[in-house]
Amino acid sequence: MATKTAPDQNRRSERSRRAIYDAALSLVGEVGYPKTTIEAIAARAGVGKQTIYRWWSSKAEVLLEAFLDLGEQAADAAAEAAGKEPGQAYAIPDTGDLEADLKYVLRATVDELLDPRYAAPSRALAAEGIVNRELGARFVEQLLEPSLQLYVQRLRAAQDAGDVRADVDLRIGLELFVSPLAQRWLQGTGPLSHDYADRVVEYALYGLIPR
Amino acid sequence: MATKTAPDQNRRSERSRRAIYDAALSLVGEVGYPKTTIEAIAARAGVGKQTIYRWWSSKAEVLLEAFLDLGEQAADAAAEAAGKEPGQAYAIPDTGDLEADLKYVLRATVDELLDPRYAAPSRALAAEGIVNRELGARFVEQLLEPSLQLYVQRLRAAQDAGDVRADVDLRIGLELFVSPLAQRWLQGTGPLSHDYADRVVEYALYGLIPR
Repeated sequence: MATKTAPDQNRRSERSRRAIYDAALSLVGEVGYPKTTIEAIAARAGVGKQTIYRWWSSKAEVLLEAFLDLGEQAADAAAEAAGKEPGQAYAIPDTGDLEADLKYVLRATVDELLDPRYAAPSRALAAEGIVNRELGARFVEQLLEPSLQLYVQRLRAAQDAGDVRADVDLRIGLELFVSPLAQRWLQGTGPLSHDYADRVVEYALYGLIPR
Repeated sequence: MATKTAPDQNRRSERSRRAIYDAALSLVGEVGYPKTTIEAIAARAGVGKQTIYRWWSSKAEVLLEAFLDLGEQAADAAAEAAGKEPGQAYAIPDTGDLEADLKYVLRATVDELLDPRYAAPSRALAAEGIVNRELGARFVEQLLEPSLQLYVQRLRAAQDAGDVRADVDLRIGLELFVSPLAQRWLQGTGPLSHDYADRVVEYALYGLIPR
């Protein structure tokens, strides 16, 4: 309708966009990536197929944006819980206590990985990314690597403060914290808990040999 | 044929069994787990479907045994290369130098993960295990956990020798070595190399903080 004002249109678009994200995430969690179609996403979201094609060129695009949006929502919720402005949570806290800051963020990661809204769709996308290397590469580039770089930033600040050895390759070092959780979550090799996250942080920071 | 002697039958069975393993592994790498069927495995192996059903009850059984066999072959080849009897390689070497022993085994793991015979089928099985939790649990129980227990054994010997702190939970500690390689391999978050494996061992043993 030509008489609609721009803010109204934006609100409507925003509602459709959110409905499409929700539909895409729930579908991929239920039937897997290969069987998730633009048609099914449109039907569940209650929009026309053309609405989706106007904004995105493929289901991979829809899903990647849906996950980015889910991550932003989680970060904003965390910021609100911590009494900060939305957007401020896109960094690992730096209280000057590296061990405490890493435990904080890994415990939050455990909570997110155990959140049922997140678990099924991310598992489906991760599984597809393992066999579909083009999708996997985009998943890493757009979703995973940006979040890993937050660890690089926090570890670099610690390195500058003398709390991490100067010769440590931080891009490798962060994997000692992140990868154990990722493998337990992806492959089910063990349970995830706050206590487990704490142990991983302690071992990675101080090593396994006697101090 | 009733006139066949038992050794002849065993040789024939062994040849069929190996042909079925090869067919199952190559098919799952090519078309993925869901599209790999007993019929297709039988056709590629040049045996009747009934031959497969005589020995195994499902394609999951065939694949798990095919992977176990592949692992045994790799271990026997490693034992031969090291001048040992087949079977002796089912332990991480214990030269008394924990760092050297872990670097040795993680470098060998990198080589195995980069071996094309191994890569496509294991990736397909890992991807399926992420979304098919029953298969994933069997994959962990029969393939993954037994190999992780080899790390527990080696780390326990190191703990007894005073080379690993007495309060370290070894089942968690081993993940600092193993999970970073697993995540790079599964999710393509970075390249695998001997140099990378060495860094992971050093960081995990000595930690990231100044010594």
